[in-house]
Amino acid sequence: MKWEDTEQQVCSVARALSVLGERWTLLIIRDAFRGTRRFDDFQRSLGVTRHRLSERLRKLVEQGVLTRVPYQERPVRYEYRLTRKGLALYPVLMTLSQWGDDWMDDGNGPPQSYRHSLCGKVTRPVLTCDECGEGLRPEEVSAQFGEVLGHYAAHLKAQGVPLPSDGELARDAARYWREQKGGGQ
Amino acid sequence: MKWEDTEQQVCSVARALSVLGERWTLLIIRDAFRGTRRFDDFQRSLGVTRHRLSERLRKLVEQGVLTRVPYQERPVRYEYRLTRKGLALYPVLMTLSQWGDDWMDDGNGPPQSYRHSLCGKVTRPVLTCDECGEGLRPEEVSAQFGEVLGHYAAHLKAQGVPLPSDGELARDAARYWREQKGGGQ
Repeated sequence: MKWEDTEQQVCSVARALSVLGERWTLLIIRDAFRGTRRFDDFQRSLGVTRHRLSERLRKLVEQGVLTRVPYQERPVRYEYRLTRKGLALYPVLMTLSQWGDDWMDDGNGPPQSYRHSLCGKVTRPVLTCDECGEGLRPEEVSAQFGEVLGHYAAHLKAQGVPLPSDGELARDAARYWREQKGGGQ
Repeated sequence: MKWEDTEQQVCSVARALSVLGERWTLLIIRDAFRGTRRFDDFQRSLGVTRHRLSERLRKLVEQGVLTRVPYQERPVRYEYRLTRKGLALYPVLMTLSQWGDDWMDDGNGPPQSYRHSLCGKVTRPVLTCDECGEGLRPEEVSAQFGEVLGHYAAHLKAQGVPLPSDGELARDAARYWREQKGGGQ
């Protein structure tokens, strides 16, 4: 599989990473959350080449994570702002930050702490179940197939074929679904 | 800045991404969470080249996210298992998955849903404050400098120098701190 085919997988992690899973991209998002908007400011902050930065920003705009907004006329210049889709990445950034705090500490404590204005306390974000409010632990969560994976799994079962590994399933189910739909895309 | 210097930043997102922020790496972690352990199985699942996969696995072992465990003698063969540091990535994977569900849906609904065995319900993970239990929203969370960034910011202020952008600050503070500590590393 080529990296470019990642977004075709019937897997939300793969699809998310098809947009976010390259060097620099999530650092650009980090900067955007902290208020960076202009090309030169991203460039100064990250120290990445202008070519690489352009390419990453272009993709994020194309995918609707950032939007280009003119901030100057003659010549027109644009800045980059997080869309709703981009702002929805906040939990991803916070969980990455937390993991960095917990496991990539350099012995000098966390680089930053976070205060929650609702309660006024320094907060430690925790991923919880929206139904019962308890923290989610991997051993207490089980995945269930949605429509596409379910159809494909039933198709394999009817043929007596065992389920392949997850990545293969996510790729093969996408192909199967396209064929079922009459070869669109 | 070179990508390789990312882990030097006084920023937990940057440090986390110095381990996780390349193509394929988080897909390897995804597969590991779903039970994949052996090289050939990762390779089959991802379809990535063996060379690329070796390189990524080596780095994850080096960084303590995966550990190599022998599963066969003569010849010795190893499998890869998530360490505690690796298992701690669960919230990162779940928030990525959620974002994919919400924003990268192909119109056929989420590929998978998740049932929480503690309460028995289909769960939608939500990032909450550990102090008050409310969901965390970016506009209600403010960052505060930890020790290293605080020292460096005070140093700049004493010199009448304005704070640079976040990425620069995270890099410059690391350099400053090393110098203060007598030029280690």
